[in-house]
Amino acid sequence: MAPHDDQPQVNDDSIASESHGKPISNIVIFIAMHTEALALVNRFQLIEDHDSLFPEGVPWVRYHGMYKDLHINIVQPGKDPALGVDGVGTVSASLVTYAAIQSLKPDLIINAGTAGGFKAKGAAIGDVFLTSEVAFHDRRIPIPVFDLYGVGKRQAFSTPNILKELNLKIGRLSTGDSLDMSAQDEASITANDATIKDMEGAAVAYVAELLKVPVIFLKAVTDIVDGEKPTAEEFLQNLAAVTAALDEAVAKVVDFINGKCLTKL
Amino acid sequence: MAPHDDQPQVNDDSIASESHGKPISNIVIFIAMHTEALALVNRFQLIEDHDSLFPEGVPWVRYHGMYKDLHINIVQPGKDPALGVDGVGTVSASLVTYAAIQSLKPDLIINAGTAGGFKAKGAAIGDVFLTSEVAFHDRRIPIPVFDLYGVGKRQAFSTPNILKELNLKIGRLSTGDSLDMSAQDEASITANDATIKDMEGAAVAYVAELLKVPVIFLKAVTDIVDGEKPTAEEFLQNLAAVTAALDEAVAKVVDFINGKCLTKL
Repeated sequence: MAPHDDQPQVNDDSIASESHGKPISNIVIFIAMHTEALALVNRFQLIEDHDSLFPEGVPWVRYHGMYKDLHINIVQPGKDPALGVDGVGTVSASLVTYAAIQSLKPDLIINAGTAGGFKAKGAAIGDVFLTSEVAFHDRRIPIPVFDLYGVGKRQAFSTPNILKELNLKIGRLSTGDSLDMSAQDEASITANDATIKDMEGAAVAYVAELLKVPVIFLKAVTDIVDGEKPTAEEFLQNLAAVTAALDEAVAKVVDFINGKCLTKL
Repeated sequence: MAPHDDQPQVNDDSIASESHGKPISNIVIFIAMHTEALALVNRFQLIEDHDSLFPEGVPWVRYHGMYKDLHINIVQPGKDPALGVDGVGTVSASLVTYAAIQSLKPDLIINAGTAGGFKAKGAAIGDVFLTSEVAFHDRRIPIPVFDLYGVGKRQAFSTPNILKELNLKIGRLSTGDSLDMSAQDEASITANDATIKDMEGAAVAYVAELLKVPVIFLKAVTDIVDGEKPTAEEFLQNLAAVTAALDEAVAKVVDFINGKCLTKL
């Protein structure tokens, strides 16, 4: 199905062509966890939207403001109303991305967050990856064609200049709703040729493609999946420090985007 | 967390109380697969909505019309634009349910569809189950509180009169994005005390709770998960025949609902 190099592919079908020529003015940054977003909210001096764009009663959060020539929106699932934890995972991510696109009509979506990394594929704690391709690793449907639908392989928007100028690592991202990794997940992650593993990316890509908005992914490695430490422990231990690396990378990407049109990324 | 009997629980917090007193007038039936919906579309003489409520370009489908005193909407994810198969699974289900609630403000959601059944828990091919409780079996997040968020256990709206009058079976439903069942899925399904297994229910429940609309589930058994035949083969073999049983059950439930208010279900 997909080419086997690790360069992002131009994905013109999924993007309204008229948006290519003018500078990007409106971006949505989807970040699943509050901790991951906080430094960026402060850096860009965004304010929380209390007269929400979202339906009454949902916990979804938007921070927004102008930074240079960009209207920046950080959107998040917020805290689960019953349990008080961040609404991680593909269902919340797809809903918030959908609602944000419908309300805000962004030129570009950035999904930023933390991820597990595979040292066998070159990932180390604190690395920030730009993603070439995303896929699911926990949607196994062993019926012809449904199997491909389940895997849901999609290209990120091609950003060769960001990759070159900002000296980011690049790799494939595999998404599933579990923080741990079962043997079946591992086999699918290997089949997806993934360097990093998260809980939202492929769902954000699905919605972005459905609504024809280009999407890129910035993922910072909090834990080594094929290492010796338990994932949950390593994740919690590194979350704050790695979030700082993510913040730096997102800031550099936003500075690079400012004033440019999509084709210059 | 949850009471251990199999009667659906009244779930008043999630429902706008003013809707209790008046007869139900507007229902949304979410059905993931076209084959599962076809007989119902014909039975209720619904027409396809070509001036769609949904955003341009999405494959989502709505059939609607009046049947007795009810405005019936059947909504579906439709065919994946790239692959042409029905958009099964939790991401599509949550998006379509969300968009349908936002547009149609239904009094009640019915998630109807096929499911795998466990013979050890009393399920047989062609059985139609009303669901007491739903949960996910493929969202393992081994961090305190996040673990409960991942499982996402929710009660269906309490319908003791439907259960008694229509002589349906009742059981718990466990949802995951794979048609097969890994050892980890099996352990979670056992922990969820589930009699049936599907690919959408818990996601529909999540969205319904978020937007405070009561939801019930009607699931017809196409395959025996703890039997000898491979799931995919048995599913495809029985899909058409079991869909007829589902059609009958949904029709009886809709007839029962007609003219009643929520508290009489």
